[in-house]
Amino acid sequence: MIAAAAAGALLLTGGVTAVANAVAPAGTPVAAPVKVAADVLPAPENVVAQNRISVGASSKAVNAALAKCQADKLPFVTVALVDRFGTVQALLRGDNAAEHTIEAAKQKAYTAAAFGAPTSELAKRINGNGPSIADLPGTLFLPGGVPLKVNGVSVAGIGVGGAPDGALDEACATAGADALAAAAK
Amino acid sequence: MIAAAAAGALLLTGGVTAVANAVAPAGTPVAAPVKVAADVLPAPENVVAQNRISVGASSKAVNAALAKCQADKLPFVTVALVDRFGTVQALLRGDNAAEHTIEAAKQKAYTAAAFGAPTSELAKRINGNGPSIADLPGTLFLPGGVPLKVNGVSVAGIGVGGAPDGALDEACATAGADALAAAAK
Amino acid sequence: MIAAAAAGALLLTGGVTAVANAVAPAGTPVAAPVKVAADVLPAPENVVAQNRISVGASSKAVNAALAKCQADKLPFVTVALVDRFGTVQALLRGDNAAEHTIEAAKQKAYTAAAFGAPTSELAKRINGNGPSIADLPGTLFLPGGVPLKVNGVSVAGIGVGGAPDGALDEACATAGADALAAAAK
Amino acid sequence: MIAAAAAGALLLTGGVTAVANAVAPAGTPVAAPVKVAADVLPAPENVVAQNRISVGASSKAVNAALAKCQADKLPFVTVALVDRFGTVQALLRGDNAAEHTIEAAKQKAYTAAAFGAPTSELAKRINGNGPSIADLPGTLFLPGGVPLKVNGVSVAGIGVGGAPDGALDEACATAGADALAAAAK
Amino acid sequence: MIAAAAAGALLLTGGVTAVANAVAPAGTPVAAPVKVAADVLPAPENVVAQNRISVGASSKAVNAALAKCQADKLPFVTVALVDRFGTVQALLRGDNAAEHTIEAAKQKAYTAAAFGAPTSELAKRINGNGPSIADLPGTLFLPGGVPLKVNGVSVAGIGVGGAPDGALDEACATAGADALAAAAK
Amino acid sequence: MIAAAAAGALLLTGGVTAVANAVAPAGTPVAAPVKVAADVLPAPENVVAQNRISVGASSKAVNAALAKCQADKLPFVTVALVDRFGTVQALLRGDNAAEHTIEAAKQKAYTAAAFGAPTSELAKRINGNGPSIADLPGTLFLPGGVPLKVNGVSVAGIGVGGAPDGALDEACATAGADALAAAAK
Amino acid sequence: MIAAAAAGALLLTGGVTAVANAVAPAGTPVAAPVKVAADVLPAPENVVAQNRISVGASSKAVNAALAKCQADKLPFVTVALVDRFGTVQALLRGDNAAEHTIEAAKQKAYTAAAFGAPTSELAKRINGNGPSIADLPGTLFLPGGVPLKVNGVSVAGIGVGGAPDGALDEACATAGADALAAAAK
Amino acid sequence: MIAAAAAGALLLTGGVTAVANAVAPAGTPVAAPVKVAADVLPAPENVVAQNRISVGASSKAVNAALAKCQADKLPFVTVALVDRFGTVQALLRGDNAAEHTIEAAKQKAYTAAAFGAPTSELAKRINGNGPSIADLPGTLFLPGGVPLKVNGVSVAGIGVGGAPDGALDEACATAGADALAAAAK
Repeated sequence: MIAAAAAGALLLTGGVTAVANAVAPAGTPVAAPVKVAADVLPAPENVVAQNRISVGASSKAVNAALAKCQADKLPFVTVALVDRFGTVQALLRGDNAAEHTIEAAKQKAYTAAAFGAPTSELAKRINGNGPSIADLPGTLFLPGGVPLKVNGVSVAGIGVGGAPDGALDEACATAGADALAAAAK
Repeated sequence: MIAAAAAGALLLTGGVTAVANAVAPAGTPVAAPVKVAADVLPAPENVVAQNRISVGASSKAVNAALAKCQADKLPFVTVALVDRFGTVQALLRGDNAAEHTIEAAKQKAYTAAAFGAPTSELAKRINGNGPSIADLPGTLFLPGGVPLKVNGVSVAGIGVGGAPDGALDEACATAGADALAAAAK
Repeated sequence: MIAAAAAGALLLTGGVTAVANAVAPAGTPVAAPVKVAADVLPAPENVVAQNRISVGASSKAVNAALAKCQADKLPFVTVALVDRFGTVQALLRGDNAAEHTIEAAKQKAYTAAAFGAPTSELAKRINGNGPSIADLPGTLFLPGGVPLKVNGVSVAGIGVGGAPDGALDEACATAGADALAAAAK
Repeated sequence: MIAAAAAGALLLTGGVTAVANAVAPAGTPVAAPVKVAADVLPAPENVVAQNRISVGASSKAVNAALAKCQADKLPFVTVALVDRFGTVQALLRGDNAAEHTIEAAKQKAYTAAAFGAPTSELAKRINGNGPSIADLPGTLFLPGGVPLKVNGVSVAGIGVGGAPDGALDEACATAGADALAAAAK
Repeated sequence: MIAAAAAGALLLTGGVTAVANAVAPAGTPVAAPVKVAADVLPAPENVVAQNRISVGASSKAVNAALAKCQADKLPFVTVALVDRFGTVQALLRGDNAAEHTIEAAKQKAYTAAAFGAPTSELAKRINGNGPSIADLPGTLFLPGGVPLKVNGVSVAGIGVGGAPDGALDEACATAGADALAAAAK
Repeated sequence: MIAAAAAGALLLTGGVTAVANAVAPAGTPVAAPVKVAADVLPAPENVVAQNRISVGASSKAVNAALAKCQADKLPFVTVALVDRFGTVQALLRGDNAAEHTIEAAKQKAYTAAAFGAPTSELAKRINGNGPSIADLPGTLFLPGGVPLKVNGVSVAGIGVGGAPDGALDEACATAGADALAAAAK
Repeated sequence: MIAAAAAGALLLTGGVTAVANAVAPAGTPVAAPVKVAADVLPAPENVVAQNRISVGASSKAVNAALAKCQADKLPFVTVALVDRFGTVQALLRGDNAAEHTIEAAKQKAYTAAAFGAPTSELAKRINGNGPSIADLPGTLFLPGGVPLKVNGVSVAGIGVGGAPDGALDEACATAGADALAAAAK
Repeated sequence: MIAAAAAGALLLTGGVTAVANAVAPAGTPVAAPVKVAADVLPAPENVVAQNRISVGASSKAVNAALAKCQADKLPFVTVALVDRFGTVQALLRGDNAAEHTIEAAKQKAYTAAAFGAPTSELAKRINGNGPSIADLPGTLFLPGGVPLKVNGVSVAGIGVGGAPDGALDEACATAGADALAAAAK
């Protein structure tokens, strides 16, 4: 279907992107397709499927989380939804949110996604004496991150940063997760 | 008003954030307020006001831009709205968008915001011989970025990355900007 | 099934990892499970599935690519298989491969994965005058990267760096892809 | 007014910058204006105004802070004024100030700006056991940073680094803030 | 022998790589050899030999370590083998392994390689009060890293990250090391 | 003299800084001096003197440069003065200057300082075919940077970024340099 | 004198470097001089002189420090001499020194240079509870760094990393400093 | 032999380093040895030997290169010797050398080491149209880098940066290489 849309133009798969970006500004005719040798297709036994939160759901979640914070008179937060690979899916920075809230929201979201538990729970496991999981790169064990699970597997996380108390951050993140629940339809 | 909301608890201004994050996970009572000496208040002549796109509008814009790309059978793009300081306000990564589209969308958005013109127009000014503005850090002169102006001053930009042709990226970015126009209410 | 394996110990999902790393060195009893509130489960319509190359297949592919280079008297290369999110799945550095071959192999692999075409084909589209897709962050348009597609969607790439000619790099990368093809079983 | 200055030359808004930088060295005639389609103008309800410290005031503040340190026989400090987005507005490095004082001054200033309180006060809230706000990226909870507030909202911070005691750093930062106060005119 | 393979083409030593990459995509004739003045050859007394783990052995080790983890129902780990210079030799990322496990595995492996002892042993030496070796850049003192020694000299390390307990990570790393032992032939 | 100022308190040389920062917030008594073994003093023949621009002069220069730009209706620029080691001495960011102007100003200033010539002159030497000095890390060969020389040796540079034409940037930078000239006293 | 050496060729000051690097490989005639407008010369009151360790002395010091470690059967260390601006002046990496010893040696050297005291003394001031100077960017408070002072001002530091005990590292660093002392001539 | 030196103290191999650094400042008794399980020893067929330039030779080479530049009235250069893994072995920064010369010298040295040819020769292969090996991360194709080969294999490189002409840089680098030649004993 996608390929059909590109008929006569680009060899358009989900993976063929931006090829003609270099060619010209808006208005230039679409570039000719990339001609490639017959693609090698991996056999089915070499492939695994992985669940992810869709972009539509991701947008719904971060908006719900921000709305909760705004209702709580905490508009100056950043909300992020990231996957298990640490990549942001959706992000909203509240008006007047300070700079570090962006990275804090991402890291809380990632930490929850990677460990499959709220960061408020994970934080209890770190006593501060000697090396700990708090040393792991890209993680942040402050309250405000909650995981999203599909079939018992953590596939993403929502993180909020900027409220004056981590419990307030977490309430917003949870509101974001709730917006995706079956009952929330 | 915001301060009122925090009466009896935290000294809550737009700028007092996360102070109690370290104290405890969700459920812990809100921390006592930070006691500070009387704040020094800058005299009015030391202050300048700057217009920005609100977070609500930012979310509306990136959703409109993504919707346009989805309607064009280009769901695998990333859309970003950033301010003149290069900080992301809102971001949506389409399903199956490749990693580089995140940074590309941000950089196109920033470039348009910083120079106050669509990146497709700016790109025409670079001939590739010798040093050029393309060497400036944090910029990307590929089509797909458009500026947002208030009172003739560029205050933000919308950028899209991932379509197989820059003109397609730009059409989505423009749809995002249109969603904020007066007539779009 | 996975959860069952952890019965009586950790709340073990694919997403619960390393929680007890901080607790103690080898020999310490397994930590008690993280107790969390009932997880919020996203409704099915909020979830999308994505195909990936399994780790077993990834290992097979990079070994096949390296074997081809060794057979061609080019043992000093690095081979990498990365996904569309730019994350490495498998990597082998040949004996005496120079440092830059690691990053080069990853970037070639990513570029092929992101654009769904061999880097040798993509390179033909860049004429070097003015801005181009070669400016996109994390990409490298030198021969030696080939994509892996499932159902017409590019999901990963194999990249090779270090041979004295890009065509030689590409031959090895192609050998890696061939090792995953249906006929290669 | 600004646009008028550029009449017949560049389409000159506050946001159109450096367009012709690539064209030629000093002496080259000013480049022709970027021609763009009618700009999309966001409706007023999509815009928020934010107060900032002007560059003139920023310069005055860092000079006052440095003067205080010099008077205290502490000339080897760096003074920085940064906004809530972590971007430096003004910076002075005292003679013989060590390298790290630059980043330390910026981080102290940012931390005060983001949390709306002096870093000396904020530091008291961190007990060092387990995760804390000291883990937040880009922050530094050592004395020497003070916030600047407008209408009760923290909009910037001044930070000083390099004195042998944090209280000495803070005294200089405070002198910088005092220079902007209403009574200081 | 290697040079012979390139006869008539490139001056092909282990150190001459990728020279023709710039010339053309696959199919282009091999580029002419680089003509250089007579190479200066360091006298023998200026040279030291250093032992390393071969790439074949490195691949064998990471596969064995991953197999152990998979057998233990811990497929979501990353395994890395790095040398004393911190450079990865071989890496496998298990299906669904979270992002941080990549860097964690590398850092554990490096730490073991650099200090010549398992990270679980090294961690016991850090009490958390004041500066410690845990502050050294690029190191991670969590269980899961084991050294590989030749003639009593540590030349490499294997690291595993992602299991819910460091002892489980270490068991996999040890299995990787065992696969290289004399008795394992 | 400096040491005298610290008598009874810290061992205060130009090089003893911030030692007590960790001890306490403002108000804490000054920490006891660091007791060290007799310092080793390098013999005179091991020492070289190097000229630098003082911080007072640096502040004067960046203010003069910004004033020129403001007079030219170009208030949205950043001005930086950096030394030959690439470290900023003074920086002012004009109101509404875009983010990249900070780094651009620093890099232009450094480039002029390092090569001892205005960047507008240096740019003429780069023809864009093949490798060039434009590839050197940390440099930027766009007009707007001018060197400062003492006894014929380039010791610093002033850089300006953000004007719509490099010649305009350079005029401001030159005004900054002129403010330091003998005749400018 | 330097300028004389370049008569008829490049405008050769200490600050004019590499201008012709872009022009051609070895053998190409020296490029024509950069023609610049009359340089602006800062008035004397705008200039400060700063003492530094010469490169010859720096080389002597790092060789002496390494020789001490080799005599102590600790050949696997790295030795660095850096200035107060954190820039390396001389560095030697012992045979088989692990990767992190490079950065560790630099950071110890810088810390001693910046604070004007041995890192072993400075470390005693950090108790590990709450924020401390150990949080300052680019510093490392492990034994092995010693300062070099001229006229009571710390101008550089020597750092050693890699010995199994910090006291051993420090002994080598001290030997390096001793090699520059007046009595060491 | 090395182990013998540590008898009764640390388990001292070339790979056991800095273990006790955390324990105490200078003067503290040597820490007890790390007790580890019987080390796993890789079988001989899993090991490869690699030649490197010794640290003594590396120091000799960079001193000879700098001496040549000083004799040529070019004292303001940096000289570096790096291995094929991009790690610096020895580095000297000449008096008044600008900051970028450090990285430039390292990158030239690495490029020569990785490709086994002088950078002046390699540069001739890049015509500047489209992607090229100049895009490879960590490389710099400006004259001034020469390789060092053992048994026909490139094992290291010497790089010089800062002279006003690349041919002058290369002459110094070559002098450094010559100092290691058999005839130079």
